[in-house]
Amino acid sequence: MIRPVGDRVIIEPIEQEEQTPGGIVLPGTAKEKPQEGKVIAAGPGLFRDGQRMEPEVKAGDIILFSGHAGTEIKHEGRALLVLQESDVLAVIS
Amino acid sequence: MIRPVGDRVIIEPIEQEEQTPGGIVLPGTAKEKPQEGKVIAAGPGLFRDGQRMEPEVKAGDIILFSGHAGTEIKHEGRALLVLQESDVLAVIS
Amino acid sequence: MIRPVGDRVIIEPIEQEEQTPGGIVLPGTAKEKPQEGKVIAAGPGLFRDGQRMEPEVKAGDIILFSGHAGTEIKHEGRALLVLQESDVLAVIS
Amino acid sequence: MIRPVGDRVIIEPIEQEEQTPGGIVLPGTAKEKPQEGKVIAAGPGLFRDGQRMEPEVKAGDIILFSGHAGTEIKHEGRALLVLQESDVLAVIS
Amino acid sequence: MIRPVGDRVIIEPIEQEEQTPGGIVLPGTAKEKPQEGKVIAAGPGLFRDGQRMEPEVKAGDIILFSGHAGTEIKHEGRALLVLQESDVLAVIS
Amino acid sequence: MIRPVGDRVIIEPIEQEEQTPGGIVLPGTAKEKPQEGKVIAAGPGLFRDGQRMEPEVKAGDIILFSGHAGTEIKHEGRALLVLQESDVLAVIS
Amino acid sequence: MIRPVGDRVIIEPIEQEEQTPGGIVLPGTAKEKPQEGKVIAAGPGLFRDGQRMEPEVKAGDIILFSGHAGTEIKHEGRALLVLQESDVLAVIS
Repeated sequence: MIRPVGDRVIIEPIEQEEQTPGGIVLPGTAKEKPQEGKVIAAGPGLFRDGQRMEPEVKAGDIILFSGHAGTEIKHEGRALLVLQESDVLAVIS
Repeated sequence: MIRPVGDRVIIEPIEQEEQTPGGIVLPGTAKEKPQEGKVIAAGPGLFRDGQRMEPEVKAGDIILFSGHAGTEIKHEGRALLVLQESDVLAVIS
Repeated sequence: MIRPVGDRVIIEPIEQEEQTPGGIVLPGTAKEKPQEGKVIAAGPGLFRDGQRMEPEVKAGDIILFSGHAGTEIKHEGRALLVLQESDVLAVIS
Repeated sequence: MIRPVGDRVIIEPIEQEEQTPGGIVLPGTAKEKPQEGKVIAAGPGLFRDGQRMEPEVKAGDIILFSGHAGTEIKHEGRALLVLQESDVLAVIS
Repeated sequence: MIRPVGDRVIIEPIEQEEQTPGGIVLPGTAKEKPQEGKVIAAGPGLFRDGQRMEPEVKAGDIILFSGHAGTEIKHEGRALLVLQESDVLAVIS
Repeated sequence: MIRPVGDRVIIEPIEQEEQTPGGIVLPGTAKEKPQEGKVIAAGPGLFRDGQRMEPEVKAGDIILFSGHAGTEIKHEGRALLVLQESDVLAVIS
Repeated sequence: MIRPVGDRVIIEPIEQEEQTPGGIVLPGTAKEKPQEGKVIAAGPGLFRDGQRMEPEVKAGDIILFSGHAGTEIKHEGRALLVLQESDVLAVIS
């Protein structure tokens, strides 16, 4: 069980094969590039102006997030990332 | 499908031909200059003072935005930019 | 058509002839000096505390603004400036 | 006509003769010292929490303000200063 | 008795055995890595917009927190850490 | 007449004799040390959340304030200091 | 009489004997370490969102506070510290 707090979102990064012009595959480099990941769990959202701001992402969404964001954690043998919702750029499916 | 989160706006930059005094065409350089682009999708807007602040731009608008803003992404083969609404200067059509 | 977003104000700078003590005319230099310009269009204003804050300037006003402010744009052949309302010092006619 | 915007206050600085211990008069130097000036016009005040915050100074007041504050402007031949209300220390008459 | 104030959370860090690829155990190093700890006590939460924001963690929770966060204290012979709630990443049991 | 604006507080510093271990009197040095002063006048307080925040000090109070704070002014021959209310530490009589 | 203003809290630090592994007593050193102190007086609390935020500590409480915080003052022969409530970590009795 892992329950993010506040506006935290826990994701599992999706390894992206990066192809250079010369065709060489660079798995998971270029950390600055936006990354893709699957949402494992989202927190309840921040408390502001007397209300919880419901997160716009939920478990199962595939998202784009700023490449350098997040804190790496290991949980039950899986390499996960803890983001803040503001690191999420868009939901892509 | 790509759904921006919060106040994110996804656009497709419009290449601008830049003509120097000497008549030389500089396609897409001078990154600092405001750029033009077409809005692909706009997020729901930020949540503040208990309300969603509806974005002022919508899909299809042609906009001017601060040249150096945004995160480059590739989605379904297209080179797109993820802006924040505050990067948008004006709607020009 | 050009429609500024949020608290943006689009103006057309008015070239000021600057006379040095020796009587030499310095057209449009000394960028730090407050500048004059004519308002082309004003945005709807920022959204705060649940309300739009109506801008205090409107199309046609002649204004004084902080000399170094704004983003230069070219629109329909005219050299314009995109300011934020907080760059405007006063309305002078 | 000159109408300041927001919390701007337009004043006409009052030249202060500064006497050093040796009795030497230093007209209008030591920019850091608080200055005196006459209020020419005050803006409507900032918009916050849904209300205009009426300015505490009005045309005709003689005020003390932080010496290095403000933007110098020339209007109808007069050398004026554009302050923000937060630059005003006190009203002295 | 120890009662945290505001959004403070007092925890007892759980020593993590860190295994390098070569199998060498590095107890409690790599301070940057997220740490695990047991919540001893949580404060009443911050006061904002006229309300107390109830903390999302309570005594007994096992949490993940940012590795470098917190102030070390000794209380009744135990080495504890005083965090702010924003340092907590997730509850893991 | 001198009327402070907003959260300004005008005081007359009270010279403190400072005794070093060797008994040497250091009048009014060590600017970093908290100073004592008498309140001459307090402004109406800042305007926030739609209300004036009444100042907690009034004319005649003897206060302790952060030693390096304030702007020196001369008014009607007296050396005064213009503080912000947040510079005041405590009222001591 | 000493009455702290706003969110100020006046305390009397409690000298802590610090024992190194070798058993050497280091009275009152290692300023970075959290300190203990007795609350002499607490201010009325800050004014926010139209309400006073009652302080969570009161005269007589023994507290833990961030070691390097506060302004030293001498009052009626006692060496005291003026903290802000946010410097207080916890109440320990």
